[in-house]
Amino acid sequence: MLRNKLHPSFLKFTKAESHNLTKLFCTSKGNMAKSKYEYVKNFELPDPCLPNCWIVVRIDGRGFSRFADIHGYVKPNDVRGLNLMTRAATCVMDEFRDICLAFGQSDEYSFVFRKDTNLFNRRASKLMTVVNSLFASSFVFHWTGFFGPIRLQYPPTFDARVVMYPTDKNLRDYLGWRQADAHVNNLYNTAFWGLVLKKGFSNTQAEERLRGTLASDKNELLFSEFGLNYNNEPPMFRKGTVLIRKLCKTPGDGKLRHVVLPFYTDLIGDMFWRENPEILGMKSLQVYHRPTEENSIIQEHSKSSPKQDTPGSVASPTTNENSLISSEK
Amino acid sequence: MLRNKLHPSFLKFTKAESHNLTKLFCTSKGNMAKSKYEYVKNFELPDPCLPNCWIVVRIDGRGFSRFADIHGYVKPNDVRGLNLMTRAATCVMDEFRDICLAFGQSDEYSFVFRKDTNLFNRRASKLMTVVNSLFASSFVFHWTGFFGPIRLQYPPTFDARVVMYPTDKNLRDYLGWRQADAHVNNLYNTAFWGLVLKKGFSNTQAEERLRGTLASDKNELLFSEFGLNYNNEPPMFRKGTVLIRKLCKTPGDGKLRHVVLPFYTDLIGDMFWRENPEILGMKSLQVYHRPTEENSIIQEHSKSSPKQDTPGSVASPTTNENSLISSEK
Amino acid sequence: MLRNKLHPSFLKFTKAESHNLTKLFCTSKGNMAKSKYEYVKNFELPDPCLPNCWIVVRIDGRGFSRFADIHGYVKPNDVRGLNLMTRAATCVMDEFRDICLAFGQSDEYSFVFRKDTNLFNRRASKLMTVVNSLFASSFVFHWTGFFGPIRLQYPPTFDARVVMYPTDKNLRDYLGWRQADAHVNNLYNTAFWGLVLKKGFSNTQAEERLRGTLASDKNELLFSEFGLNYNNEPPMFRKGTVLIRKLCKTPGDGKLRHVVLPFYTDLIGDMFWRENPEILGMKSLQVYHRPTEENSIIQEHSKSSPKQDTPGSVASPTTNENSLISSEK
Amino acid sequence: MLRNKLHPSFLKFTKAESHNLTKLFCTSKGNMAKSKYEYVKNFELPDPCLPNCWIVVRIDGRGFSRFADIHGYVKPNDVRGLNLMTRAATCVMDEFRDICLAFGQSDEYSFVFRKDTNLFNRRASKLMTVVNSLFASSFVFHWTGFFGPIRLQYPPTFDARVVMYPTDKNLRDYLGWRQADAHVNNLYNTAFWGLVLKKGFSNTQAEERLRGTLASDKNELLFSEFGLNYNNEPPMFRKGTVLIRKLCKTPGDGKLRHVVLPFYTDLIGDMFWRENPEILGMKSLQVYHRPTEENSIIQEHSKSSPKQDTPGSVASPTTNENSLISSEK
Repeated sequence: MLRNKLHPSFLKFTKAESHNLTKLFCTSKGNMAKSKYEYVKNFELPDPCLPNCWIVVRIDGRGFSRFADIHGYVKPNDVRGLNLMTRAATCVMDEFRDICLAFGQSDEYSFVFRKDTNLFNRRASKLMTVVNSLFASSFVFHWTGFFGPIRLQYPPTFDARVVMYPTDKNLRDYLGWRQADAHVNNLYNTAFWGLVLKKGFSNTQAEERLRGTLASDKNELLFSEFGLNYNNEPPMFRKGTVLIRKLCKTPGDGKLRHVVLPFYTDLIGDMFWRENPEILGMKSLQVYHRPTEENSIIQEHSKSSPKQDTPGSVASPTTNENSLISSEK
Repeated sequence: MLRNKLHPSFLKFTKAESHNLTKLFCTSKGNMAKSKYEYVKNFELPDPCLPNCWIVVRIDGRGFSRFADIHGYVKPNDVRGLNLMTRAATCVMDEFRDICLAFGQSDEYSFVFRKDTNLFNRRASKLMTVVNSLFASSFVFHWTGFFGPIRLQYPPTFDARVVMYPTDKNLRDYLGWRQADAHVNNLYNTAFWGLVLKKGFSNTQAEERLRGTLASDKNELLFSEFGLNYNNEPPMFRKGTVLIRKLCKTPGDGKLRHVVLPFYTDLIGDMFWRENPEILGMKSLQVYHRPTEENSIIQEHSKSSPKQDTPGSVASPTTNENSLISSEK
Repeated sequence: MLRNKLHPSFLKFTKAESHNLTKLFCTSKGNMAKSKYEYVKNFELPDPCLPNCWIVVRIDGRGFSRFADIHGYVKPNDVRGLNLMTRAATCVMDEFRDICLAFGQSDEYSFVFRKDTNLFNRRASKLMTVVNSLFASSFVFHWTGFFGPIRLQYPPTFDARVVMYPTDKNLRDYLGWRQADAHVNNLYNTAFWGLVLKKGFSNTQAEERLRGTLASDKNELLFSEFGLNYNNEPPMFRKGTVLIRKLCKTPGDGKLRHVVLPFYTDLIGDMFWRENPEILGMKSLQVYHRPTEENSIIQEHSKSSPKQDTPGSVASPTTNENSLISSEK
Repeated sequence: MLRNKLHPSFLKFTKAESHNLTKLFCTSKGNMAKSKYEYVKNFELPDPCLPNCWIVVRIDGRGFSRFADIHGYVKPNDVRGLNLMTRAATCVMDEFRDICLAFGQSDEYSFVFRKDTNLFNRRASKLMTVVNSLFASSFVFHWTGFFGPIRLQYPPTFDARVVMYPTDKNLRDYLGWRQADAHVNNLYNTAFWGLVLKKGFSNTQAEERLRGTLASDKNELLFSEFGLNYNNEPPMFRKGTVLIRKLCKTPGDGKLRHVVLPFYTDLIGDMFWRENPEILGMKSLQVYHRPTEENSIIQEHSKSSPKQDTPGSVASPTTNENSLISSEK
């Protein structure tokens, strides 16, 4: 388990040595010598990402409808589940400092690496697998913190992909695409589960009722049938979660430390990018002054629903110890 | 979190609709319409594996020397840690039936997909990330089963890569390479930790003592200094762990079911491949008759060391419930 | 045009030097120094072919229907055009000794590199472009040798691609695919142009007449309408051209030299591969004893049609001077 | 040679049909049916270029030192050879309208495709091979036009590669790199061949004399030894050749037509890009008013040396018939 770095000398064998090793190690004679096999390493093909492009790693839950059913996720949105996703994403961002932004919704999370990152020499497979495995292991590691007594029934699987975006506009359009996806899906799901849970529709009946409806129809339906103004739904549900890195005063010693903060805000317009110019500008981190009422939204065991955002407002940071400690690394 | 499949009709908007959505959703007018952003999907580049090649996904622990230290891994080999790796690998094989063999040693595991697999249309990134994330989440999920009261301090990270091998010989040489690596490293580590733990050498002193030594020197050192015949060390330590799929009688109902079995055996000679011809031949699963003494080596909380293998013998299968239940899927 | 290899020292500049060069060379100050730009070299991405696979480069004429019309190609097969293609392919094989076989038909040629070639470190783009450009330049270079007074109207374009085949069977199936394609197309074209040229059908009428017909129908049509036994058509038309490398006695000094020989023979059955085992076996070249009547089929200005082959027989080698001279390189 | 598009029906066979074809076509029974082999098409792997990146195809002469020697190229620069390269590059630009700029020097030429080109669906292998083969065939096709009685001894070979550049700055730096390379090499070669041809140095002596010299040393040497002010050397030699597309009045009918024009000008500063904003801006073509004295520099059989450029001036366009006719396509 402990890998001691071997000096190259350890890998060379005399003929007699080879013979001895063969006796010790092999069932058939003569097929020893590690070096004999090392040619297979040449079959590993390089897969570098093009320089000077934004690198996005998107992870996506595999079979998460079933996973949500089995673990009793609340429909249409389970706050615990969403916050657990964000907790896992925060672990990833704490570990890989070249990720400058992450965006999550439903069972997916996108991680944006700086255009100029040289992490793992920009090897695509390395980037996607370290992000993906740390996300998956963090999801399980923090499960109990969010789901308490509900036991995890089996370990979940996520897939991942790497996509490169040459320009800032392409990157913003990518994030706009994911956020519009969050919106379209959530509006549908809110209407769908309203019909099913509050009106007793079967899944098929709800599907039929909504077939062909426009967004305005669904808004109208939500208001007339359930008295629900979709626009007042929690922004985390409607807009997904944005994670960015800021410098924050640590409550105890007052020192500035790196912290990963969640925001439930619009990524499509210009305001977010104007207010956080360091992201596309690849500048040094900005100091973030927290709103006065210190309330941590993402807390383990938290039962509070996410609050609605007012224009320009942001959610509170993750102030739990872990993220502050991790920020000192 | 629940993804309802949307009918394409839900994604189309009238002009008025677009306007409404803009009001609901966007801070700046006119930049709505999910479809406006969907062009970014074209930046996802295809990465299919060449047909008719063996596909190997190798996962590898990241920063595992530190991980082992922090969690008090026994040197030079921690049976709990190795068995946990094998448990996680078994989860992966239970889930992905096109993996016909896996080989693990130290903090790495290689998974061999059938040459003719069409899983995920052979997309390299899909294959490596689902294997990698399931391995990572299983590692955390099963931690307590192997380490009991020792708490997991943080979620571990693994990287993964995909390598293709065109011929059976190339694949066997790959596995030979990893097994020879296990041997070379373990011989070195056994000598190194012997010197450190039993002779009071510092790490640097042990390293210097071993610098330039041949395998025969290290065997001699182990025997003369510690009375240890390296050849009698547990085969799991010397040879790593091979996982293959067999049909086994279920103890209860006597039915034949798929089971993933661990073997600690030589992969370099021909015997293993002769005895398990279905692997390279891509034939249907073979029935495996367990040795009479039914003892499960890989059990959660198990404290027993792996037994030595006699020539041709194999380790007992994983008979714990989980793996049998999973085999019924 | 002459590239003298520059010593690295030539690429370094003192500050004053830089200033001088700027004055000499640049319109705006400060943007000199070749090294300033050299980072752009990192945008070149690697594209090695997987080791131990057969590498096929297939070139294909672009817009060759128009090219054939403009240059008065005989329908359905123009012997001059086919032999010119083969002449160009021979140039390619003379230059790149790791090509062990080529197969041509219509306006395409496939070149098979040995599985173990390390030419250009197996870089796909290098392999396909050197083959493709030499083919194209040879096609123009040798045009007059085959078309005599008919002037080449414009330089032709060919595309190329690289395909890897892991096994001998895959490679043989690839060649079978191209040869079956030659057969299917030639049978159709023979019937089509028979109807058009000998029966006065319009292109559309001929197309309609043949729509839905099976191969047997077309054979029957050829026989009943034109008294033509398709099986007696020249094998070069029916089977395409295979180029392989042999050792031949040079007429003058009797010495054995490498020669690229054309054969019009079946590649689908086993006979060809049994008679030429050095190709798949990657063995040293075989001596080839030419049939007694020495008649060169591929000669510049030649007007003779290719002869039919008898079972097992092969066409005569290219005995024109060029190919023998090139074989001495 | 003529490829009639086959209806899919032609590719299906009845059992009897299959039997007949087997008899007609195959030496061994049962291995017929084109469709049986078509699976090999799946081994062709996709290689699309990332969207929204500039695509550069650079072609490069292979073994051109030898080629230049054999054909008696003038040292250090052969105007005929350079103009022939530019003629071939013009053919390529006439054929592929999505190439917006080309830059040539020595035995290489770079072709820049518009960022938004969708030619061949941006498949890298298609793009590089069509450019490369048309360049090579054009080089041979136009040889006599530039070298007159000097016969081409053998067909030349070029390699090609594809490189993507995400931003305008990256593209300009690429072109700056190639132009700085032209400068550095030409300065060296001018000094080197001066010593060899005018001072009787051997190649080795000239190399030794220049070893370690800075650019300023070489400028000084040229001036003191040969009375040559390097800055007065022809700009084509010092700066290479830029080809861009403009709208020009056709001398005869006065109509505006697309023409590919050569310029020998600085690409590193901003002036060129300011004067030709349509290139990076991907705008419609600009009208170009030729300087009054209509003298075509690139003419076949031309013996005139390229003139020096005055600041802002440009060389005259290619006014030979071919390029104007091709512009009407």
